Amino acid sequence: MRFTSARRLDDGVLEHEFTLGGIPGILWTPASTSGPVPLVLLGHPGGLDKMYPRLAGRARHCAAEGFAAATIELPGSGERPRRAAAEQARADLRRSLAAGEPVDDEIIDALILPLVEKAVPEWRTALDALLSLPGIGGPVGYSGGVISIGIRLAVVEPRISAAVLFAGSFVPRALFEEARRVTIPLHVLLQWDDEGNDRQAALDLFDAFGTEEKSLHANLGGHTGVPRFAGDAAARFLTRHLK
Amino acid sequence: MRFTSARRLDDGVLEHEFTLGGIPGILWTPASTSGPVPLVLLGHPGGLDKMYPRLAGRARHCAAEGFAAATIELPGSGERPRRAAAEQARADLRRSLAAGEPVDDEIIDALILPLVEKAVPEWRTALDALLSLPGIGGPVGYSGGVISIGIRLAVVEPRISAAVLFAGSFVPRALFEEARRVTIPLHVLLQWDDEGNDRQAALDLFDAFGTEEKSLHANLGGHTGVPRFAGDAAARFLTRHLK
Repeated sequence: MRFTSARRLDDGVLEHEFTLGGIPGILWTPASTSGPVPLVLLGHPGGLDKMYPRLAGRARHCAAEGFAAATIELPGSGERPRRAAAEQARADLRRSLAAGEPVDDEIIDALILPLVEKAVPEWRTALDALLSLPGIGGPVGYSGGVISIGIRLAVVEPRISAAVLFAGSFVPRALFEEARRVTIPLHVLLQWDDEGNDRQAALDLFDAFGTEEKSLHANLGGHTGVPRFAGDAAARFLTRHLK
Repeated sequence: MRFTSARRLDDGVLEHEFTLGGIPGILWTPASTSGPVPLVLLGHPGGLDKMYPRLAGRARHCAAEGFAAATIELPGSGERPRRAAAEQARADLRRSLAAGEPVDDEIIDALILPLVEKAVPEWRTALDALLSLPGIGGPVGYSGGVISIGIRLAVVEPRISAAVLFAGSFVPRALFEEARRVTIPLHVLLQWDDEGNDRQAALDLFDAFGTEEKSLHANLGGHTGVPRFAGDAAARFLTRHLK
């Protein structure tokens, strides 16, 4: 892990850019801390530059609770090399949506499964590096999409003790099965009018999660329109489980 | 409105029993206040004696936020006279549920519509009386079931400015239409495993509400198993809108 820049944001939060095995990432730490702090991994759909304003906003929310927050670029996004099969699947998906057709399971599998396979080990490697830093001690939460990455991480990564999942992407059938094996507390955000999301599939996925503590928070609005009070509630969920 | 008893609960909250036109009710006021306080009407499925522990718990939650809380007995419940048609509909409902059959719309209508017709004017009369008391000033929230009563009140009673609705009872089709006319902020609680509730109908009803601010909070557990954190979130919703 190599830190490439650091700056203090106007509210005192420290923002550190890093690379880890060629993957760009950002770490945010609270303005002041006493002792090691919990860590929230911020999931996103890919493209750190485009996502930066929303990620930084969520990171500040975490810092206000006394948590560090970190994210890394996804495979095939931002400056990372594209994968031809994923680009093809993305084009197929767009075509289906534009035509108003149901999206074939094959398209979803081709888009998401290789992404999960590649991204999850990268996030775990990032977690190794982040938890070895002085000042970051855990426990660890995951917050965001891609929901399939969150599901796999929740199943395979025992250091993650709670997750906020954003229902807002297509989920392969295989991940529904993995969802049954999730045992950590979950807080699922669903934007009721998300045009790019299958609401019924999101409800079915919520039903499938095997954990004994799961909450679904559905709010009006489109994909990026999570109301402020819903973001606050998600932050309180993490605080309840990470503090 | 005639007050029949008053006592101070162990946390200082004042509990006043009253009758209003022969209808029993309870008013809870905070241990100490400075000036008139907002009021939360606590809905329930009927039977004040049986419901008392949960109502008192919710009232204490309100008092902790600086709100008064009040409730009245429903028509046909507790010591109030039974209505033969409602008793018949209740027996029909039990028979359908025991047989695992879908419940006919006619049964739901016979059970709920006359209840709404009779209860809602009573709650409005209680509101008149409660708001005329010194120390209670509004704004007013509604919190609880019967959800159909909450819907009708939200539509016809302009003094109610926000509502927490418990999805946990059968809703006549006519009330789905009224739901479209609700314009106040709503916070809907759904117990995901509520054996006496039709989950899909609850989701359809949430979808139908016409208001621009509505949140659905679904949690694991049966009808009476609302987790503590979900009760806290509902209280925060009321605080956000009544303070």
